Amino acid sequence: MAQPYDLPLEELRRYKPKLTKEPDFDEFWANTRRELSRVPMEYCLTPIPYPAKNIEVYELRFQGMHDAHISAYFAKPIGDGPFPAVVSYHGYNWGSNALEDTVLSAFHGYVSTQMLVRGQHGGSEDTLPADGHVAGWMSKGILSPETYYYRAVYMDAVRLLEIISGMDCVDRNKIAVTGGSQGGALTLAAAALSDISCVAIANYPYLCHFRRAIDMAQEHPYLELNEYFRRYPDPETEKQAMKTLSYFDLMNHAQNITCDTFIFTGLVDLITPPSTVFAMYNHLTCKKDIRVYRYFGHENFVGSSVIRYGILKDYLW
Amino acid sequence: MAQPYDLPLEELRRYKPKLTKEPDFDEFWANTRRELSRVPMEYCLTPIPYPAKNIEVYELRFQGMHDAHISAYFAKPIGDGPFPAVVSYHGYNWGSNALEDTVLSAFHGYVSTQMLVRGQHGGSEDTLPADGHVAGWMSKGILSPETYYYRAVYMDAVRLLEIISGMDCVDRNKIAVTGGSQGGALTLAAAALSDISCVAIANYPYLCHFRRAIDMAQEHPYLELNEYFRRYPDPETEKQAMKTLSYFDLMNHAQNITCDTFIFTGLVDLITPPSTVFAMYNHLTCKKDIRVYRYFGHENFVGSSVIRYGILKDYLW
Amino acid sequence: MAQPYDLPLEELRRYKPKLTKEPDFDEFWANTRRELSRVPMEYCLTPIPYPAKNIEVYELRFQGMHDAHISAYFAKPIGDGPFPAVVSYHGYNWGSNALEDTVLSAFHGYVSTQMLVRGQHGGSEDTLPADGHVAGWMSKGILSPETYYYRAVYMDAVRLLEIISGMDCVDRNKIAVTGGSQGGALTLAAAALSDISCVAIANYPYLCHFRRAIDMAQEHPYLELNEYFRRYPDPETEKQAMKTLSYFDLMNHAQNITCDTFIFTGLVDLITPPSTVFAMYNHLTCKKDIRVYRYFGHENFVGSSVIRYGILKDYLW
Amino acid sequence: MAQPYDLPLEELRRYKPKLTKEPDFDEFWANTRRELSRVPMEYCLTPIPYPAKNIEVYELRFQGMHDAHISAYFAKPIGDGPFPAVVSYHGYNWGSNALEDTVLSAFHGYVSTQMLVRGQHGGSEDTLPADGHVAGWMSKGILSPETYYYRAVYMDAVRLLEIISGMDCVDRNKIAVTGGSQGGALTLAAAALSDISCVAIANYPYLCHFRRAIDMAQEHPYLELNEYFRRYPDPETEKQAMKTLSYFDLMNHAQNITCDTFIFTGLVDLITPPSTVFAMYNHLTCKKDIRVYRYFGHENFVGSSVIRYGILKDYLW
Amino acid sequence: MAQPYDLPLEELRRYKPKLTKEPDFDEFWANTRRELSRVPMEYCLTPIPYPAKNIEVYELRFQGMHDAHISAYFAKPIGDGPFPAVVSYHGYNWGSNALEDTVLSAFHGYVSTQMLVRGQHGGSEDTLPADGHVAGWMSKGILSPETYYYRAVYMDAVRLLEIISGMDCVDRNKIAVTGGSQGGALTLAAAALSDISCVAIANYPYLCHFRRAIDMAQEHPYLELNEYFRRYPDPETEKQAMKTLSYFDLMNHAQNITCDTFIFTGLVDLITPPSTVFAMYNHLTCKKDIRVYRYFGHENFVGSSVIRYGILKDYLW
Amino acid sequence: MAQPYDLPLEELRRYKPKLTKEPDFDEFWANTRRELSRVPMEYCLTPIPYPAKNIEVYELRFQGMHDAHISAYFAKPIGDGPFPAVVSYHGYNWGSNALEDTVLSAFHGYVSTQMLVRGQHGGSEDTLPADGHVAGWMSKGILSPETYYYRAVYMDAVRLLEIISGMDCVDRNKIAVTGGSQGGALTLAAAALSDISCVAIANYPYLCHFRRAIDMAQEHPYLELNEYFRRYPDPETEKQAMKTLSYFDLMNHAQNITCDTFIFTGLVDLITPPSTVFAMYNHLTCKKDIRVYRYFGHENFVGSSVIRYGILKDYLW
Repeated sequence: MAQPYDLPLEELRRYKPKLTKEPDFDEFWANTRRELSRVPMEYCLTPIPYPAKNIEVYELRFQGMHDAHISAYFAKPIGDGPFPAVVSYHGYNWGSNALEDTVLSAFHGYVSTQMLVRGQHGGSEDTLPADGHVAGWMSKGILSPETYYYRAVYMDAVRLLEIISGMDCVDRNKIAVTGGSQGGALTLAAAALSDISCVAIANYPYLCHFRRAIDMAQEHPYLELNEYFRRYPDPETEKQAMKTLSYFDLMNHAQNITCDTFIFTGLVDLITPPSTVFAMYNHLTCKKDIRVYRYFGHENFVGSSVIRYGILKDYLW
Repeated sequence: MAQPYDLPLEELRRYKPKLTKEPDFDEFWANTRRELSRVPMEYCLTPIPYPAKNIEVYELRFQGMHDAHISAYFAKPIGDGPFPAVVSYHGYNWGSNALEDTVLSAFHGYVSTQMLVRGQHGGSEDTLPADGHVAGWMSKGILSPETYYYRAVYMDAVRLLEIISGMDCVDRNKIAVTGGSQGGALTLAAAALSDISCVAIANYPYLCHFRRAIDMAQEHPYLELNEYFRRYPDPETEKQAMKTLSYFDLMNHAQNITCDTFIFTGLVDLITPPSTVFAMYNHLTCKKDIRVYRYFGHENFVGSSVIRYGILKDYLW
Repeated sequence: MAQPYDLPLEELRRYKPKLTKEPDFDEFWANTRRELSRVPMEYCLTPIPYPAKNIEVYELRFQGMHDAHISAYFAKPIGDGPFPAVVSYHGYNWGSNALEDTVLSAFHGYVSTQMLVRGQHGGSEDTLPADGHVAGWMSKGILSPETYYYRAVYMDAVRLLEIISGMDCVDRNKIAVTGGSQGGALTLAAAALSDISCVAIANYPYLCHFRRAIDMAQEHPYLELNEYFRRYPDPETEKQAMKTLSYFDLMNHAQNITCDTFIFTGLVDLITPPSTVFAMYNHLTCKKDIRVYRYFGHENFVGSSVIRYGILKDYLW
Repeated sequence: MAQPYDLPLEELRRYKPKLTKEPDFDEFWANTRRELSRVPMEYCLTPIPYPAKNIEVYELRFQGMHDAHISAYFAKPIGDGPFPAVVSYHGYNWGSNALEDTVLSAFHGYVSTQMLVRGQHGGSEDTLPADGHVAGWMSKGILSPETYYYRAVYMDAVRLLEIISGMDCVDRNKIAVTGGSQGGALTLAAAALSDISCVAIANYPYLCHFRRAIDMAQEHPYLELNEYFRRYPDPETEKQAMKTLSYFDLMNHAQNITCDTFIFTGLVDLITPPSTVFAMYNHLTCKKDIRVYRYFGHENFVGSSVIRYGILKDYLW
Repeated sequence: MAQPYDLPLEELRRYKPKLTKEPDFDEFWANTRRELSRVPMEYCLTPIPYPAKNIEVYELRFQGMHDAHISAYFAKPIGDGPFPAVVSYHGYNWGSNALEDTVLSAFHGYVSTQMLVRGQHGGSEDTLPADGHVAGWMSKGILSPETYYYRAVYMDAVRLLEIISGMDCVDRNKIAVTGGSQGGALTLAAAALSDISCVAIANYPYLCHFRRAIDMAQEHPYLELNEYFRRYPDPETEKQAMKTLSYFDLMNHAQNITCDTFIFTGLVDLITPPSTVFAMYNHLTCKKDIRVYRYFGHENFVGSSVIRYGILKDYLW
Repeated sequence: MAQPYDLPLEELRRYKPKLTKEPDFDEFWANTRRELSRVPMEYCLTPIPYPAKNIEVYELRFQGMHDAHISAYFAKPIGDGPFPAVVSYHGYNWGSNALEDTVLSAFHGYVSTQMLVRGQHGGSEDTLPADGHVAGWMSKGILSPETYYYRAVYMDAVRLLEIISGMDCVDRNKIAVTGGSQGGALTLAAAALSDISCVAIANYPYLCHFRRAIDMAQEHPYLELNEYFRRYPDPETEKQAMKTLSYFDLMNHAQNITCDTFIFTGLVDLITPPSTVFAMYNHLTCKKDIRVYRYFGHENFVGSSVIRYGILKDYLW
C-alpha cells in the first residue's frame, strides 16, 4: 500500500464526518457522572522506593466507578508545592511503562500520576460482568451503553483527575492530561467529561470514529470489533453495538472539550488510522493544534517527547 | 523446524513428567465441588427453530458456579427416549460452531448439548472480578486457585453434565463427554470431577502440563501466560501463578478419570504441543487410547469425525 | 488495505461489466453437451459403513466426460422415498470434507451427493493430456476451449445431476445444486448447462469475471493464471488463454440460469474477490438473492449453514 | 532456527541411512527401460532465431515414454563438430530459463540441450492419467510405481541422453549431465539408468531420501507429500505411497551411478535439506566430490557457475 | 492490493509530473564533470582464468571520482576487434553476478564490462566520509548534493564509459549502456552525463521521481529515505535532503539523454514502482520504447534477456 | 521453536567456549590505544534548550579516532558538582533516543553522556574508507583488524570516557559505563580497554562469540556477516574475516575487564542469542552478576530501568 495508506493529508485536514450522537447522549453522560459522584472520593498513597534523590514515588489507590479499587502510579518533586500536575493514561492492554512515565514526568517538575486501567494492569479491579465477547475489552458489555466496559473506565479517568486536583501539593489551575492510544482516548474523555484540565495532549487517540476505524484499522485492538461482528453476524447485533459505541466515540465528545488540545498523529498508523484521528480533531471547537508525522505509525515519534514537555512547560510553568 | 517439532513419537509415548500437585489438591477440589453443590440445579429450555424434521433444538440455560447464568445449545431426536447423550465443550475464545456441532450430534441419535463457556460466547455470563491481566482469560484471577477463571468454568462443565444426566429423555448410563482444545480440556475436567460419563473423547486437549506448554507453544492462547510473566517479571509472581495453574493442570487430574478415554493429537500442533498432551495421557490410569496424526496440527483431522462417531456408537448404542 | 478492499458495497451492487462471450459460445456448449450425451449414463453404488441408524451411505461411481471414471459420495435417509435431493460440489484442490457434507445433507432429509472433482480427490480420474502448465489445474489445456480442463469438469457436474434426477428414490422436481468456491462455480455451471435443478445456492463462486479476478485476487488459485502469464509472457498467449477462459466464465453463463439462485459472498474475500461474484450476480436474470458478509473472507460464514438449510427447506419440502 | 538447521556438517558427512529398496527394485527398472526401448528413437529440430553469431539454436522434439511428445531446447557452436555435449534438466514446476541455460552452455563450446519436463513447461506433453492427488506432480499416480509420474520423467531424461549421444555432431565419449533441484534429481537418475554420461553435476538434487525429506523440508514441493498424507490419512495409503517412492529415491539408485559425480549443496536449504542430499551422496560408490555452501539455501551459489564450467572443462575438453 | 497496485497502465502512459530541477542543476553537473576530468584516465587489466576458449576475461581497475580505485569485470571475444561494446552496471547492494553478466555479454560478441559500484562490491573503494545515516548508501551525505554518495557513483559510471570508448579493441561508435535497478539508474545517468553511448537499455531503473518513490515503494532500498526522515523528523532536514535528491533524480536528467533508449518495467514492482519509471520515461525526448510486464515485479522478466540481446544486435552489429 | 530456542539455562550457565585470541591480540590493542593517544583530547559543548529546570543539556563534540569529529549528548544536574557520571552508548544503526536517555540519566543526579556512533547517527563522522561490503557496518573493512570499522568505534568509546573523567564537574572515581546491544558491546569494550569506570552495566551485549552468533542469530545485524560470506564464498575470505573479528570479540576482551560488571539478557533474544552473551560472561573474571529474563527477547525488559538505576545508585552515590 502507498505510504499514506489512508486519505491524503489535504483531505484529512478537511475530513469531518457527521456526528453519530444519539438524542440522549448528553443525558446518558449526565447520569453517568451523577453515578460517579456517589462514589466516595477516597484514596491512599503507599510509598515505592525509587533510586533518585529529588522525587518521591507512591502507589495511589482510589475508588473508581462502581466502587472498584483502581491503582495508579504517583510521583512528585520533593517538597510541598503546590506544583503543576500531569495526569496520564496508558495504552490498551499494556501498562508496563506506567511507573517510568510517571517518574519522568515528576523529574520535569510535575506532580504526576498514571492510572492503571481496570483489568488491564496491576491491582486495578475489573468487576464488570459480561456475556460472550471477544478476548480483550473492546466488546465487553457492548450491547448497551449502560454495560459497556469503557463507561466505567471513562469515569475512573475523571475521578483520578478530580482526586489530583484536590491535593494540597497541586496547583489546581495547572493540570494537564495526556496519554497515547487508549491513553489518548482517556485524555480526551477526561477533558470532555470534566472541566479540570488546562491542556490536553493526546498521541494517536483511540476510540474515535468507530465506523471508519472498523474499515481502516489493520491491527488490533479495533479489530476486536470486527471479530465480534463475525461471531454475531446478525445485522441487528451490529446496529445495537454501533449505537453503544456512539456514546463513547470521542468524535461525539469533541465539542465538549474546552481546554487547549494538542494532537499528534502518524500518517502510516495502522492501529488508529489518521482519518479517525482527524475526524475527531476536525470536530474540536477549542483552541487546538495537530502535529502530523508523515513517516510514522503507532509508535514513538522521534523527538516528540521533548516537544510534549515543551508544551507542558508553556502551559504549566 | 522439522515436522515433528516436539519430541519424536517414541519419546512422546514414554514422556511422563512428574506431577505438580500441591498437597491440598484434593481438598481444594472437594471444597470447590461442595461450593457447586450449593448452586441450585435449575435450567430452562427455549426452542430454536431449525430446518430439519427429525430433531428438535433448544437453548438450555442453567445456573453455573457462583450462580452465573450459563447458556448451552441442546438438541435431541424427536421422541421421548431415553436416548444416549453427548455433552460437549468448545474451544478457547470461539463458540460459533456450537449450534452446528450440537445438531450434528443429535442427528446421529443422541441427546446432545454444547456449553457456551462463560464470557466467551453467547449469553453465558462471566461475573468474576479480576486484577490486571492479559487480554483473554488465561491469566484472569491467576494469583490464587480460588480466584482463577477456570475454577468456575470447570464447575460449569460438571454442572451441565449433572443436568443432562438427570433428564428424563436421557439414558444416564450412556453419556459421553467430548470436545477439542479448551473443549478437550473441559472434557477431561468434567470426566475427572464427576462420575457421570461412560466415555470421554478429547481432541488435542488444552490445559495440560503448563510448564512445558509455556516452553513449546508457538501460538495463542498458552502464550497469554508468557505475556503475563513479561508484564510481571517478578519471579515470585511466576511462582505463585504456576502454583495456581497446578490445580487446573489436567495432568494432575488424569488419575481421577475412571471412564474410558480416547485422545486425538497432531504431531505438528503448535497450540497444544503433543508433548503436553502425552504428558497427561501417560498419567491416565483408565482404559485409554490415543490416535496420533503425524501430518496435522491444531485443526480438523481429516476423517476423524467419522471415527469419533464410531467410538460413540460403540459406547452409546 | 481497507477492510472492504474491493469496490464499496454500493458500487458492487451496480457493477455489471460487459460480457466477454465469443460469437460461438452457445455453439461450443451445444457441441460439448452433445459430446456428453454420447457418454453412457451408467453408475454403481458401493455401501460405506457409517455410524448412524437413520441414513445409508455409498460411494457412487459413474462415467464422466471422455468416459473417465468419476466418484462421488452419496447418502440418503433410510427408506424408498422419493426424497428431495441435493447435489453438491467441493472447492478447488480439496475434497476432504465431501463425506461429512454429504452425510449432513442426508440427515436433513435429502438424497445427497457430492462429486469428487477429477484429479482433485479420491478415485475421480483425470485423463486429460496437457502441455506445460502451472502446478494445479487452472492452466491445464488453457490454449483452447476444447482442451481446457474445466470443459470436462463442467460436463461431469452436469452428468451427476442427470444421474441423480433419474433415480427412483429422488423426486425429480425437488433438486437443489450447491457448493462453495470451485463448488459454487460448478453449482452455477450445472444450473446453466442443464435444466434439472429448482434452486442453486453458491457460496463465493469461483470462475467468474477472469479479467478482474486476475487483477484483484490476492491468494490462489486464480493466481495460477498470473503465474502462467509470467511463464509465457508473449501477449498472444495471454490473449488466447483469456479467450479460452471466456467460454468458462460464469458471468457469460449467468443468463442461462433459470432456477432461483442464492449467492453468499464475503466482502474481504481475497480468493474470489466480491467484485467478481457481483459481476456474475448482476448478470443473472433469474429470481435471485445475494447475502453479503461484511466481515468475512473466503471461509465459513458463521450461521450460514442454518440459513442454507432454511433455503433448501423452502424449496424442497 | 539455527543456521545449519539440519544435522551439523560432521554428522552430514557420516549420515548414511539404510537403503529402502524393495526386492524387485532392479527388475522394476529393467522392465521400465525395456518399455522405453520400444519407443522409437525419433526427434526433429526446428531452428529458433537467436541474436548471436557463433551458435545456432533449435527446439528439439522427441518421443518420450508412452510416446508422449517431449520438447527440449538445443544449441550448439556453429560447425560440424564433433563437440562435447551437456544434457541438462530444469527444476520443479519451472522451465523458464531453459533457453538461456542452453545457450550459455553452447557458448562455452558444447552441444547443449535442456529437456522441458512433461506437463511442467512448454510443449512437453503429460499424458498420464491420475486419480485424486495434490496440485502439482509429486503425488500423481503415487499409489503404484507403475503409475507414478516420475517413472515416465526418468525415462524421458534417459531418452534425451540417448538421442544426444547418437548425434553426429556429438563426441559420444564426452557427454555430461547436469541440473539443479528436480534437474539434479534427473541428472542422477539419467546417470544411474544409462551408461552414457562421463560426468554428472547435480545442484541440491531433489527426490532423495523421502522419509527424511518429509520430516525436514520447510517449503514445497516435498510438502506435497505431506499434504497428500493429510488428505488420505489412512496409514495403509502412506505405506503404499512410501513404497512407490522407494523405487524413485535416488539414494536407492546411487550405487548404479558409475560416472564421476559432483554434488553442490547448501546448508540452509529448506527445500532439499542437506541431510537428504548427503544420504544419497554417502551411498555413491563412484568417484565423487561434494561442495558445501554453509550460507546458502536452495538458490544460486555465488560463483558456482564458473566452478561448474571448470569441471565441465576438465572432463569434456 | 490489486495487482497493478500503482496507477493503471493508461494513466502511467500519461503520467508526467513536473520536473524538480533546481536553477543550478546544469551548473552543478558541469562542475561535477569538470572535477571528474581532472582525475587521470588510467586503468589496468589483470587476467582472470575462465573455462571457455573463445573469450578472455579480466579485472579492470581504474581511477574513479575523487581518485578512488574502482574495479570492473571486463571480457571480450578473442581477437583484436574493433568490437562493439556493452558497458553495464549492477543493482543496489549486490554485484555478485557481475562476472557472469560480463562473460555472457562477451559471448554474444561484445567487448563487455560491468562496474562494481564503490563500497558495494569487490575492490571498489568508497572513500566518502559521512555523518549519521541509515545503513546502506541512500542517505549517505544526503544533506548536500556536493557530498551525496551518488555524485561520485554517477561520475564513476561516466568514467568507465570513457575508458571503454578509448580502447583500441572497441568500435567507439558502437557502445551500449545497460543495467537493471540501480544499474538501470546508472545506465541513464551515464547516457545523460556523457555522449558516448548509442543505445541505453534500462530495466526498472532506480533513482527516478523520489517524491513518489517514497510514497509508493514497499521494499528497500527507497525506504532507507523514509527511515532517514524518521530519524531526523525535522521538516527542514527533509526539505534539504529532497533538494539534494533532485540533482540525482533521473527524471530531471531525462531530457539530456540523446541516444535511443529502451526501458523495461513490471507493473507489480514494489521496489521501483512503475509510476516512478514512467515519470522518467515520459520526460525522455530521445527516440525511446518501453516494454511493460503486467505480471512481473522487480525480477527477471522471463524471456527478456533474448529481447535485450536482440536490441543490442540491432544497434551494435 | 521452543521458547528458550538457544541452550537451556543450566547449560548457558556453564557455556564457556575456548577463546579465539590471536597471539598478537594484546599487541594489536596496545598499538591501537597508542594511536588513539596521539589524537588531541579536545571537545566543545554547545547548549541545547530543554524544557526542565533542574538539568542542563549540551551537544558534546570531540575528536575521535583518526581525528574524526564525534558527537554525543551531554546533560548534567544544575550545579558545579563534582557529580558521579554515566557514559552510555546506543544500539546498532539507531541513536534516536540518545537525547532522552541522556536527560533521564541526568535527572537521576548524574553527569551523563551518550555517544553517537560514527556514521550511525547525528554529526558523528565516519571517515573510514571501505571496499565492497554489505549495507551496514558489520563487514566494513573486515579483511584486516587494522581497517575494521569497530577498531575506530571502540577507540571513540574509550576517548569519550577519558574526556568525561577529566571534567571538573565529574567525580572521577564514580563513573559508570552502560548501554544495550551495540551499546552493551561498547560498554564492555570501553571497560576492557580503559581503567576508568567503576561499574559496567550491559544489556544483551552485541559483538560476542561471533562463530556462534553467525549460527544462531535469527535477525540482523549479525546476519550481515552471513550475507558477506554469501557474496564472497571463498573459504579464505571467511577465514580472514573471522580472524579480524577475533580481535573485536568481547569474549576475548572479558578477562581485561576489572570493574564490577552487570549483564542483562533475555532467553528468547533472536538478535544477540543468550549463548553468545553467556560465552562472554563466563569468561569474565571480575566481580559480576547476570540477570536472566526468561520471557524476553532483544527489547526493553519490563522493570529493568529501575533495577539499573538501583545498581548505579549502589555504586555512584
